[in-house]
Amino acid sequence: MRVAVDAMGGDFGPRVTVEGAVKASREYELEVLLVGVEDLIKKEFEKVNRSRSKLSIVNASEAIGMGEGILSVRKKKKSSIRIGAQLIRDGEADAFVSMGNTAAVVYITKAILGALKGVEKPALSLLVPSLKGLTLLIDVGANVNCRPHHLEQFAVMGHTFMSSVLGIKRPRIGLMSIGEEESKGNELTKEAFNRLKESPLNFIGNVEGKDIYSGKADVIVSDGFTGNIALKVSEGVIETFFYMARTEIMKNIFAKIGFFLMKRNLKKIYKKVDYTEYGGAQLLGINGVCIIGHGRSNSNAVKNAVGLAKDFVMNKVQEKIQNEIAELSHRLGQAGG
Amino acid sequence: MRVAVDAMGGDFGPRVTVEGAVKASREYELEVLLVGVEDLIKKEFEKVNRSRSKLSIVNASEAIGMGEGILSVRKKKKSSIRIGAQLIRDGEADAFVSMGNTAAVVYITKAILGALKGVEKPALSLLVPSLKGLTLLIDVGANVNCRPHHLEQFAVMGHTFMSSVLGIKRPRIGLMSIGEEESKGNELTKEAFNRLKESPLNFIGNVEGKDIYSGKADVIVSDGFTGNIALKVSEGVIETFFYMARTEIMKNIFAKIGFFLMKRNLKKIYKKVDYTEYGGAQLLGINGVCIIGHGRSNSNAVKNAVGLAKDFVMNKVQEKIQNEIAELSHRLGQAGG
Repeated sequence: MRVAVDAMGGDFGPRVTVEGAVKASREYELEVLLVGVEDLIKKEFEKVNRSRSKLSIVNASEAIGMGEGILSVRKKKKSSIRIGAQLIRDGEADAFVSMGNTAAVVYITKAILGALKGVEKPALSLLVPSLKGLTLLIDVGANVNCRPHHLEQFAVMGHTFMSSVLGIKRPRIGLMSIGEEESKGNELTKEAFNRLKESPLNFIGNVEGKDIYSGKADVIVSDGFTGNIALKVSEGVIETFFYMARTEIMKNIFAKIGFFLMKRNLKKIYKKVDYTEYGGAQLLGINGVCIIGHGRSNSNAVKNAVGLAKDFVMNKVQEKIQNEIAELSHRLGQAGG
Repeated sequence: MRVAVDAMGGDFGPRVTVEGAVKASREYELEVLLVGVEDLIKKEFEKVNRSRSKLSIVNASEAIGMGEGILSVRKKKKSSIRIGAQLIRDGEADAFVSMGNTAAVVYITKAILGALKGVEKPALSLLVPSLKGLTLLIDVGANVNCRPHHLEQFAVMGHTFMSSVLGIKRPRIGLMSIGEEESKGNELTKEAFNRLKESPLNFIGNVEGKDIYSGKADVIVSDGFTGNIALKVSEGVIETFFYMARTEIMKNIFAKIGFFLMKRNLKKIYKKVDYTEYGGAQLLGINGVCIIGHGRSNSNAVKNAVGLAKDFVMNKVQEKIQNEIAELSHRLGQAGG
């Protein structure tokens, strides 16, 4: 198997991606194609022990910045993201992993690879830790304007991913809304609720914002606007809390000692809630395997993202999604829907 | 001034509301009308020291449960919430405070009091603590389906509340979206962005989910669906984090000691982030002052909610909102919008 890794992506660029690629190649026994500025990648090669790893470089002379807008992204014809996507299109790589600008990766891979047959809107999904395991949020930002049948397709894709990659039988599908009762929600969710209720999926009804981390559902479906806000709010709460805690603790010697004694345990929790540990977001429904990691990923997170890409390919998620979506259309066709 | 308090509301009912009412009457030197089952309220009267407080009881034979649906809420003609709203309508109270079922309070007060002239959709707003002070979120759940001009009205009402009650000059208005750039957002927010840009408000553009607690804006505007999810996600993150921390800390004796040493400081932070401290949500744009506290409010939170109601009345927020909304319509009329 060959996985292309965007060497230029992420907050730290080749320094972290190359190290992650080495670790991944070794651990998962696969070939990694590092896509990026050749000289910079070679410089990193000199710093790491590459024994038992299989790496090659695919030169890409341009890099896309983390905050770069779509207009300038479109102009860069030799960006590492574009060339990475082309490697999948041309059958030279089985998957593409980037820690880069999410909007740019979504835009470019959609343009170059297109959607799987029958999929109207590929969606960005992300595994987040919950009290009971992992929950998949879909969509977390690829589609800001959705119709009810899009949410139904997201549910099918989330179901397929969780059952085939995580081995969860009949994953519980929840619909993100503002109350558990069927009557709660906006026009979009109410209509999506009716569709999901009629589907053969294991639909457990509406879930609320607080249920993202409670483990009540295995998959939580929403439009990309709502999902993105839910995710960013979570990040904001955690950041603010730690900032306040640090400020408060530094004021008092006993609190400082207390913090020192708790440090190891707090780190364990942090590791548990840190979703970069889980490999990154998946672009589901696109015609090619594409994993987008968090910009602040360290080399272990890069390695995990490659591992996730491998699982994705090995479990034939793409093929399964296409079949499930075809079945959905067939069912709706029969029902006259 | 007379403030009606729903004695039956909240997770703890009269045990907490009566004590809160006594504290409020004493501290703010106003009369509190306790609305609820007379016998239950009288029983609580025997337990508390009511010196220097001015209280009276308005009997209401029914109570609405925290999880009760709107259908059953409509049938209860003698509920404490309904009678509380009628006291404002009939000029017997200047404001109404309830810790009860939010959906029920919104539904009943809208039905009995109606909206202020010119206001299309009264909205639920809530002050949340940020790193720099307090931020007002509007709407956090009263209106799940909104049009762009509704968001503009929410912005005007939020502006009026923050400038008149909190004394913030030219409050910074942010629009909740999924990226700072004007181009980021869904159909609703993009159109609302254009309207806000043209308004005389101090509009600072889009803000993201993580900015709720950063203090970047004084007012954050969203539809009620998005706002409610943002709020519930925040609660869920905090609850999950504390649950994980407790579990992790209990495993280790050093961590336990550490926690003991930090306890006082953690409590301080908790007090800072606990938004029941700030008095509760305001129903802005309704024809009467109505504050809805959190169900788990203690007696201090009840007192704070009454204090907020008093500030609301003293600062003539209702009159100001009506004037500002009239000005908005006038401006849009002139612009042909």
